[in-house]
Amino acid sequence: MTEVQAPDILRCAYMEIIVTDLAKSREFYVDTLGLVVTHEDEEALYLRTYEEFIHHNLVLRKGETPAVAAFSYRVRSPEDLDKAVAFYEARGCEVRRNPEGFTRGIGDSVRVVDPMGFPYEFFYDVEHRERLAWAYDAHIPGALVRLDHFNQITPDVPKAVDYMEDLGFRVTEDIRDSEGTVYAAWMRRKPTVHDTAMTGGNGPRMHHIAFATHEKHNIIAICDKLGALRKSDAIERGPGRHGVSNAYYLYLRDPDGHRVEVYTQDYYTGDPDNPAVHWDVHDNQRRDWWGTPVVPSWYTDGSRVLDLDGNIQPLVERSDASEMEKTIGADGFSYTRPEDEEELPEWKQGEYKLGHQL
Amino acid sequence: MTEVQAPDILRCAYMEIIVTDLAKSREFYVDTLGLVVTHEDEEALYLRTYEEFIHHNLVLRKGETPAVAAFSYRVRSPEDLDKAVAFYEARGCEVRRNPEGFTRGIGDSVRVVDPMGFPYEFFYDVEHRERLAWAYDAHIPGALVRLDHFNQITPDVPKAVDYMEDLGFRVTEDIRDSEGTVYAAWMRRKPTVHDTAMTGGNGPRMHHIAFATHEKHNIIAICDKLGALRKSDAIERGPGRHGVSNAYYLYLRDPDGHRVEVYTQDYYTGDPDNPAVHWDVHDNQRRDWWGTPVVPSWYTDGSRVLDLDGNIQPLVERSDASEMEKTIGADGFSYTRPEDEEELPEWKQGEYKLGHQL
Amino acid sequence: MTEVQAPDILRCAYMEIIVTDLAKSREFYVDTLGLVVTHEDEEALYLRTYEEFIHHNLVLRKGETPAVAAFSYRVRSPEDLDKAVAFYEARGCEVRRNPEGFTRGIGDSVRVVDPMGFPYEFFYDVEHRERLAWAYDAHIPGALVRLDHFNQITPDVPKAVDYMEDLGFRVTEDIRDSEGTVYAAWMRRKPTVHDTAMTGGNGPRMHHIAFATHEKHNIIAICDKLGALRKSDAIERGPGRHGVSNAYYLYLRDPDGHRVEVYTQDYYTGDPDNPAVHWDVHDNQRRDWWGTPVVPSWYTDGSRVLDLDGNIQPLVERSDASEMEKTIGADGFSYTRPEDEEELPEWKQGEYKLGHQL
Amino acid sequence: MTEVQAPDILRCAYMEIIVTDLAKSREFYVDTLGLVVTHEDEEALYLRTYEEFIHHNLVLRKGETPAVAAFSYRVRSPEDLDKAVAFYEARGCEVRRNPEGFTRGIGDSVRVVDPMGFPYEFFYDVEHRERLAWAYDAHIPGALVRLDHFNQITPDVPKAVDYMEDLGFRVTEDIRDSEGTVYAAWMRRKPTVHDTAMTGGNGPRMHHIAFATHEKHNIIAICDKLGALRKSDAIERGPGRHGVSNAYYLYLRDPDGHRVEVYTQDYYTGDPDNPAVHWDVHDNQRRDWWGTPVVPSWYTDGSRVLDLDGNIQPLVERSDASEMEKTIGADGFSYTRPEDEEELPEWKQGEYKLGHQL
Repeated sequence: MTEVQAPDILRCAYMEIIVTDLAKSREFYVDTLGLVVTHEDEEALYLRTYEEFIHHNLVLRKGETPAVAAFSYRVRSPEDLDKAVAFYEARGCEVRRNPEGFTRGIGDSVRVVDPMGFPYEFFYDVEHRERLAWAYDAHIPGALVRLDHFNQITPDVPKAVDYMEDLGFRVTEDIRDSEGTVYAAWMRRKPTVHDTAMTGGNGPRMHHIAFATHEKHNIIAICDKLGALRKSDAIERGPGRHGVSNAYYLYLRDPDGHRVEVYTQDYYTGDPDNPAVHWDVHDNQRRDWWGTPVVPSWYTDGSRVLDLDGNIQPLVERSDASEMEKTIGADGFSYTRPEDEEELPEWKQGEYKLGHQL
Repeated sequence: MTEVQAPDILRCAYMEIIVTDLAKSREFYVDTLGLVVTHEDEEALYLRTYEEFIHHNLVLRKGETPAVAAFSYRVRSPEDLDKAVAFYEARGCEVRRNPEGFTRGIGDSVRVVDPMGFPYEFFYDVEHRERLAWAYDAHIPGALVRLDHFNQITPDVPKAVDYMEDLGFRVTEDIRDSEGTVYAAWMRRKPTVHDTAMTGGNGPRMHHIAFATHEKHNIIAICDKLGALRKSDAIERGPGRHGVSNAYYLYLRDPDGHRVEVYTQDYYTGDPDNPAVHWDVHDNQRRDWWGTPVVPSWYTDGSRVLDLDGNIQPLVERSDASEMEKTIGADGFSYTRPEDEEELPEWKQGEYKLGHQL
Repeated sequence: MTEVQAPDILRCAYMEIIVTDLAKSREFYVDTLGLVVTHEDEEALYLRTYEEFIHHNLVLRKGETPAVAAFSYRVRSPEDLDKAVAFYEARGCEVRRNPEGFTRGIGDSVRVVDPMGFPYEFFYDVEHRERLAWAYDAHIPGALVRLDHFNQITPDVPKAVDYMEDLGFRVTEDIRDSEGTVYAAWMRRKPTVHDTAMTGGNGPRMHHIAFATHEKHNIIAICDKLGALRKSDAIERGPGRHGVSNAYYLYLRDPDGHRVEVYTQDYYTGDPDNPAVHWDVHDNQRRDWWGTPVVPSWYTDGSRVLDLDGNIQPLVERSDASEMEKTIGADGFSYTRPEDEEELPEWKQGEYKLGHQL
Repeated sequence: MTEVQAPDILRCAYMEIIVTDLAKSREFYVDTLGLVVTHEDEEALYLRTYEEFIHHNLVLRKGETPAVAAFSYRVRSPEDLDKAVAFYEARGCEVRRNPEGFTRGIGDSVRVVDPMGFPYEFFYDVEHRERLAWAYDAHIPGALVRLDHFNQITPDVPKAVDYMEDLGFRVTEDIRDSEGTVYAAWMRRKPTVHDTAMTGGNGPRMHHIAFATHEKHNIIAICDKLGALRKSDAIERGPGRHGVSNAYYLYLRDPDGHRVEVYTQDYYTGDPDNPAVHWDVHDNQRRDWWGTPVVPSWYTDGSRVLDLDGNIQPLVERSDASEMEKTIGADGFSYTRPEDEEELPEWKQGEYKLGHQL
């Protein structure tokens, strides 16, 4: 399969998601998070971040069932679309091409159901919009300035990584155990920690979409605003510092339960020999550098994805070990210091701060 | 009792705590948190914050059992010590005065066991040290610049508040329920939200001592450093935004389990008619504005306190309702929106983010 | 004169200024700086900061000539107004009392022309408004949270300090030279570096009014917004770090040329023996800790003040040395290192970064 | 010349500079700025940023005369070195290749004198060192986390841009006037605003080398520390917000006068159709978004560069118009609002805040 050349992907560009109530979603993404409206009509909202110059980073489309319609990547040139077609046809995937584009503002596009069951899109042609980087009069305290990455749930992470490496992605970090099980992997095209990540679990599902802020206080401002609006229950996890990626993070749930991350300050990964970081699944600081426990819903929940006809993709169960069960609950454990065999201090016993105490 | 004039208290000034291993405590308070060493010897460490000009804000004294030896307040003038003596003698409290001071660097001092059983100290005379506010070459990313407040656990909060008001303190905020139970109260002399707070529980015990930073990122830097040192299990709760006080906070536990808060950005309270803020005990945003659950140890644990002879004070149990039981667990509940009677969204059910689901 | 007791002043509370175009001033103070409108009508705007609970911190009143009508302080009790009357009458000052208040929202008030020629006001009674500290949905990136201080221009600083000390103020910092000339002094009631400062120059004039933000990035956000609005010429000086006060600062000029400071992170000064800081007028880091030169307009410009009938107060010229002439220009000098007698590095010669090169 | 393929450059990687006193330079770059020492000996210091994994981002080599010995770029593969040789030989440039590398830690390298007279280096092979991104216990308040870019002074900017575009760089922003004169241009390989920029002036000279921080307060912390060390005269310009690049910036001068920028928060530029931003040379916000004037030394000063034998390269004078003369001084002008023909407000006249008033 190596003779089929992969398209040259620039970056994750936008996600199209199905929401059940456009007005509620608008309140969340526009009024609260401050995404910029490029276009809106009865059927859909097209939103972008302050530093974006392409038409949109997020499409909210009205539908019956919350789901993800497309994970969309921008490629380097129009010719890369032909490569995308060939790449997926060689893998026996369903491939559709629409010279008019599948969403407003985007031209010639290819959509496929990829080998893991995800609806992937590739495009080059796109309408430009004003980059609002300098429009500080329009910025809010929690300004979202860039789409940073996607995160996908799939049962077989190593298989997904193999395919994504064929597609030209590089692994920057992953979570493993000493028996060789891989629990999650982060992969990039643009030189950040990731454009997408694969999280082990029943899939295909979407784990989250992530937007970047400039500074950490911007993320705190989003939480403060949600508190003021009495919508703090939209906060699922964080804010905290990731071990993986070293970024400062926050996870929200939108009105349909779609998970949105706000993220800032990972590191440059653009060199071919960029050292990949491998985290032990039992390391209590891998998911949160401060050892704050991951809430169970963060492990278990995800958004269903659609096929190219708009039907919900069936789920495949994960057969490999589950990260949640490996690290919390009766059979799991995690450590702060690998060498530490001592008892916990008395004041720590019975707390859920350590995974094995939950 | 109103005819006995209270001493004019300026502010909480320092705490003297007993630690079991000076070297370990030094590593925590000096090497990690960056408190400035004013003096150290075989028996004790005298530490201050970067913006302090008095000899110390914290004394760590070596002993067998972790405990608090004194909550010490500075008064406006030497004459206020006489008032302190009279104030406590009128209440039948044990009172000792030491013209040489009870700790290094402090002159004429009064120590009492107060009506709630706490070892309180008052002093005016103190050695000055260089205020290191401008010494930015010595500041660390998580610079602690000021002692902000104490927090005490006591079974009968209204009784404690009455006594503290006699002593000249003013309530700025409290947590109550509709039946009139008071769960906690915040009281100030200097015009911040508090110099000390009363937290309902078995007492007398010390809940925490709090130091201030300038900005929120300074608090994040402390967590990041603890992660780098593989000491993230010192983080008990947070960082987060308090509802009460509106401050950004973090709770740590020192090597003996003493609780230390790092705190920034509450508000001015110095006017006599400063509006007190009353929080409903069931309001899910009272303790954390973002609705993040309070870890149980934060409710249950505290440091014992000493009498004037260095013996551990016996505990009195709280007979009023417990905040933890009122808000989490089988019988308790809390809400994000008072008017909200709907079911939680499906993705929220089964999570411990909401107190009543724990 | 010491037998006349001074009123117990809590803090600087608001300033009343005359502006020539209410719409333009509203655009500056409300649309750009985000002050909260408590009330507005054809004649005046009443504005407060996000954390304020009294009716206003700034009154903008329409008039022919830009000027300051009142520097207003809040006192601890209604009885302090009687003391204020007595205090100023004993000094032969013009004193007026209005039980209805001189501005909307304020009750019984005393206005005087003080010994330096400034229109000072004192009040206790005031309408309360909602403290918007928790209203993060309404905060902007450059949120002004508190009125911090006034700054006044007067020809004889030591004389002004003597009078202010009689009035109960304490000096926290000043700028002097080795011959004993005092160029400026900072004085406080609330325990910050100042409620007002005296700047040497032809007076009485108002140098600036200062509002506080929580963090330094809030001040940067104000500049970024002014740039986006193509109003960066409202920025007169900074942002930078003060030597005096250790605060991070910015100076703006409003549409009438009134100077507004935005200020954050000075230090606690509430102890009676708080060490005063004396700066050498030749110290290049006194006005800006980074040695950035002070623009000449900052030294020379100020707003005229009114008497109690609304007439412009005449100016008295400063006869003592001028700080600007002492430190910049042909005859002045300033140093970065007091001991440094070497030549400047070649790349520094001819630059205006050092005052003596201007 | 287009048939000769350019090497695939990843990013600016390090600069080698000649300093006259290693101890003084170490104090500046290591003790003050906190760069990490990878290696040091009698002749040279090899320094890297906290997030770097290659051997160094800066080499300080002891010598008689301050100068720049190499602007070094990393290429994607060993084969790109052959392309680099061919690329420069086709242009008649002096080319040297050293399989052992020209500096410690770097393997096979090519050095050339490029068509503008600059000593450029290309390498792929390099020793790895620990990426200290997570080593927060070692970070200082002003942590430099990444080498961001170089900036070069050359007399003919359009000619330099043509050559750099042949070399694979893309212009992201530039400064022009309506007559077509180009004053400066910013060009990138990695998807930030630049890996290097061309500044019009007598050249070849090095204008500055720039390191990135995570947040704006990190840059402020560097200034605060320089103040505390009484070295604030190392601050040449800023901190401020650039118009070009939208980054927050600071310019320092090292003990030899080499200029160092600290820089944070520009934007993603990695798409081929990334919109280039053209600034009018008369726009007062182009160099500083807040309109703060550029100090003349910033326009006039730069470091000389060496040829491959270590001799100072001769200067070629700029014949095109000078940005400084076009915008400040008797004949120049700049505007805050292009449409603004009004007189300045009175309080602005005579100030040097506006370029045309200097």
